Amino acid sequence: MKTYNYSELSSTEIQKLVQRNVDPANEIRTIVEDVIANVLQHGDSALFDYALKFDKVELNKLYLDKAELEEIAKAISADQKTALETAYSNIYKFHQTQLKTEDKVETMPGVTCWRELRPIEKVGLYIPGGSAVLPSTFLMLGIPARIAGCHEIVVCSPPQKNGKVNAFIAYVALMLGIDKIYLAGGSQAIAAMAYGTASIPKVDKIFGPGNQFVTKAKTIIQSTTTTAIDMPAGPSEVLVIADETAIPAYIAADLLAQAEHGIDSQAVLVCTSADIAQKAIAEVEKQLPVLPRAEIAKLAIDNSYVVIAGSLSEAMAFSNQYAPEHLILATHSWEQITGSIINAGSVFLGNLTPESAGDYASGTNHTLPTSSYARAYSGVSVDSFVKKITFQHITREGINNIGHTVEVLAELEGLHAHRNAVSVRMSPSTP
Amino acid sequence: MKTYNYSELSSTEIQKLVQRNVDPANEIRTIVEDVIANVLQHGDSALFDYALKFDKVELNKLYLDKAELEEIAKAISADQKTALETAYSNIYKFHQTQLKTEDKVETMPGVTCWRELRPIEKVGLYIPGGSAVLPSTFLMLGIPARIAGCHEIVVCSPPQKNGKVNAFIAYVALMLGIDKIYLAGGSQAIAAMAYGTASIPKVDKIFGPGNQFVTKAKTIIQSTTTTAIDMPAGPSEVLVIADETAIPAYIAADLLAQAEHGIDSQAVLVCTSADIAQKAIAEVEKQLPVLPRAEIAKLAIDNSYVVIAGSLSEAMAFSNQYAPEHLILATHSWEQITGSIINAGSVFLGNLTPESAGDYASGTNHTLPTSSYARAYSGVSVDSFVKKITFQHITREGINNIGHTVEVLAELEGLHAHRNAVSVRMSPSTP
Repeated sequence: MKTYNYSELSSTEIQKLVQRNVDPANEIRTIVEDVIANVLQHGDSALFDYALKFDKVELNKLYLDKAELEEIAKAISADQKTALETAYSNIYKFHQTQLKTEDKVETMPGVTCWRELRPIEKVGLYIPGGSAVLPSTFLMLGIPARIAGCHEIVVCSPPQKNGKVNAFIAYVALMLGIDKIYLAGGSQAIAAMAYGTASIPKVDKIFGPGNQFVTKAKTIIQSTTTTAIDMPAGPSEVLVIADETAIPAYIAADLLAQAEHGIDSQAVLVCTSADIAQKAIAEVEKQLPVLPRAEIAKLAIDNSYVVIAGSLSEAMAFSNQYAPEHLILATHSWEQITGSIINAGSVFLGNLTPESAGDYASGTNHTLPTSSYARAYSGVSVDSFVKKITFQHITREGINNIGHTVEVLAELEGLHAHRNAVSVRMSPSTP
Repeated sequence: MKTYNYSELSSTEIQKLVQRNVDPANEIRTIVEDVIANVLQHGDSALFDYALKFDKVELNKLYLDKAELEEIAKAISADQKTALETAYSNIYKFHQTQLKTEDKVETMPGVTCWRELRPIEKVGLYIPGGSAVLPSTFLMLGIPARIAGCHEIVVCSPPQKNGKVNAFIAYVALMLGIDKIYLAGGSQAIAAMAYGTASIPKVDKIFGPGNQFVTKAKTIIQSTTTTAIDMPAGPSEVLVIADETAIPAYIAADLLAQAEHGIDSQAVLVCTSADIAQKAIAEVEKQLPVLPRAEIAKLAIDNSYVVIAGSLSEAMAFSNQYAPEHLILATHSWEQITGSIINAGSVFLGNLTPESAGDYASGTNHTLPTSSYARAYSGVSVDSFVKKITFQHITREGINNIGHTVEVLAELEGLHAHRNAVSVRMSPSTP
């Protein structure tokens, strides 16, 4: 792995190091726009065509129903069921605490304001199902949707060549009380959920990761329809901050867990100890070759780097500029530095907290901002599935208290009808 | 105003009534893309050119400093200062309660998860300043940014022909402790904040309303850079639900307050009483002609309509399909129906709560989702200026409790390095 000394890096060099390719998929824009236009125009018929073309399967209907899902789910072992249920339970426990009611605030006598949560009525979950089958993603999106109380949860996942979905996906659907999975993948699935087809309902917001076609479709939909999206998603990434108390074998395992995702994944080590860094690199070389996805991981590691920092605070300064999706603090002194974290998606504290625990079962959500989006975006949570609506109530006393202020401000903005809406209520002749 | 009977409307007709033109500005896309490209390439020099071209002023620098703002702000009367300060105080009081710390959750023994808030470091506020000068918008964006603790608040507002900003804008800047206003308007201001120029810093998220050029620039920026935006913004709108306890003169004043915003504003009345509806329409005709912005309001009212509903619950069903930015419940029984609100930006309860109170001073935010975006988006709040970062900590006991679950799930997703990151920590030989 390429190694840099923080103190020798100019700010331009740091800028370059932390830069990710924001929109590598722009060249596929036209392709995706065609798919979207085709689904908008031909609906279900386009989806059948794409299933044949991309998923190599001739479907006779665009969904699996409850009985079919139950049949498919039988293939799961007891051990796998228990693992999925433990993950479900932890994720549920953590996300449940995010659903909060808020207090009313009397901003001046007779003027009361508050916010109430309402679930987004119709949400669409995209669950990838091609080479990577990700039941964990289904849990991460389905559980907060259920806790929020969304009325309709539409799930799309690409069909396998047998016209079905994977057994784990089917099992998670049943755990979540979802009775139908729509057999559509790629940008055509996103278009179907944004516009609706005869089979697939139109939704208000679309969630979920996917390949570059899916991501491109989501960003197009977001800027051309009223359907919202969870966030733009790029390749996964981890940044490990380590000091002399870190364990090289753990660091290496964490870097490789990230690297195996895809050749464009990035695994960055920022270490205050050159010795630990060297040992971690040696461990990477030792652990890598025996991995089933070694080829992918190798390319991702080639694309990654190490920064030697003079102190944990220097390391954190670099991390904040990078704004990592996953941040691991591989140090005994993590409690001293969490306060200085500004930009990160999810943080893993100490030597015994691997990122893969958060990917599956610690309870936090694994749908997180990548590509430095952590500067402005949060990961998915129950918040992502609700709106917070503001309410205000004004009494007779309240309108007398606030009225003049509103009149003056409306007047200075030149909005007389705004002024009048208050004046008419303050008039002594009105009821 | 055109009047419909809810019971006679087919679902297609309702669909058509609640439909807003999502993207009327698509034809200006090329113009805006050119402006963005020009600012990206020429920076400050492009901004000077646009100030000359669009704002008709030759600037010698692109900002006003504190001394200049103080000089400009002297023009305000004591009464206006008091009104701005009362608004500030109410908005601050309500928004302050939105900044919450969250509890830690032990999802299983030894596995602890929580969220911590972090301000978005650099935010950009766009404050319109052409024909409409909106100091209230500056308060609505600046106050939550301050409460969130954003490190850098960049403010852009178009220069007037004298090369300055309006006195109210200057005064609000000083109230907020903002010492600089950048003199840039339109899509060029959005581009400058997204990419940064020699004078104007690059920000992580851009907030604020604007004309169709500004809105188009925001949606382009959102899909092509890592800079986020608050929300897409369309023409303002109100939906009033009224029954026989409503006061026609108040309804009319509220409809007209909305209508005076612009010719594309929409003011919808959904009334369970044909008599009250008729009287409200008569009141609109009476109040409209004397307004200074009567011409604008007249065109907006022509673009609006009345629906006669059989009951409040029918009225609410229509409103939920419309998903209004502003919802007024002009009825004594508002407490009985707030629970059935699904989609709305901000809600005004009872006959004495005019929407204009919320526009200025009740305490709620007036930056709200329009064009049916209220189905999936919330209005601006302190939430909009922070990220919620998840944290997790696992102890030795915790890794033993959660380890097997993670191993099984990583295995079934075919991610062996993910599995290994846990296994290596469970090995009895490790520290």
